[in-house]
Amino acid sequence: MFRRSIILLSIAALTPTLAVADEHIQRAVETRQGLLKVVGFYMGPIVGMAREQIPYDADRIKANAERIAALAPMIPDVFRSDTRGSDVPTEALDKIWDNSADFADKAATVAARAADLAAATANGQGATMQAFGAMGGSCKACHDEYRQQE
Amino acid sequence: MFRRSIILLSIAALTPTLAVADEHIQRAVETRQGLLKVVGFYMGPIVGMAREQIPYDADRIKANAERIAALAPMIPDVFRSDTRGSDVPTEALDKIWDNSADFADKAATVAARAADLAAATANGQGATMQAFGAMGGSCKACHDEYRQQE
Repeated sequence: MFRRSIILLSIAALTPTLAVADEHIQRAVETRQGLLKVVGFYMGPIVGMAREQIPYDADRIKANAERIAALAPMIPDVFRSDTRGSDVPTEALDKIWDNSADFADKAATVAARAADLAAATANGQGATMQAFGAMGGSCKACHDEYRQQE
Repeated sequence: MFRRSIILLSIAALTPTLAVADEHIQRAVETRQGLLKVVGFYMGPIVGMAREQIPYDADRIKANAERIAALAPMIPDVFRSDTRGSDVPTEALDKIWDNSADFADKAATVAARAADLAAATANGQGATMQAFGAMGGSCKACHDEYRQQE
């Protein structure tokens, strides 16, 4: 009876801490997913143009690429919270936090390629789509390494 | 029987369209909530410093304020999809789309005040906290007008 009370007290003492930690992790996961949804929002129309589903619009590509160039450097910021070992659903692989310098480098490459894409819109559709391919490759390089494969 | 078949066929024909529309709205809501979560992520530490819960750090305020200055102009972009009349849960009020020019102005004010805050960090803690108050006021002005009150 005495031992059982100790166990129950220990659980009671632990629960709020766990709840706060879970909430913190949940918020961290939602924030980084949120950032990448915004990146996807600006990517979407460029993908549509590359697939010729919507008309080519250099001004829109430039504006969206500039947004992505501003967003990509935030990726390492929002992934700073190490959420390894939590039960919160995520596609983020643990090695993000083993290789955080490489992860940050890959995000910096995305930012640089997005700026290149914005600049390339001055040089016609061919140059723009080539620069878009290079930017897409830099996104994929990070996803291949650090995001759970479907 | 014939009439019933027509009704069933009509429902069947309509359902995929509704599902696609719902998915589109769901994604729009998640994207804008995602953006504002990232804004909140950069706001959090500054709020903590203002409340003296964490030590004052001018460099961090400058960096975070610059992030917010880059994010705020994206607010009108991600709110462009008019989601009025949908069942997707949101705190966004319908009048966002009635007054979209004013909504965009308010977001531009947040961006300008965030840039002011970043600059104010060169002038000491008093000037910084004053500038932070002004930025917070610009956030609140938009929330008071366009976000559901709790």
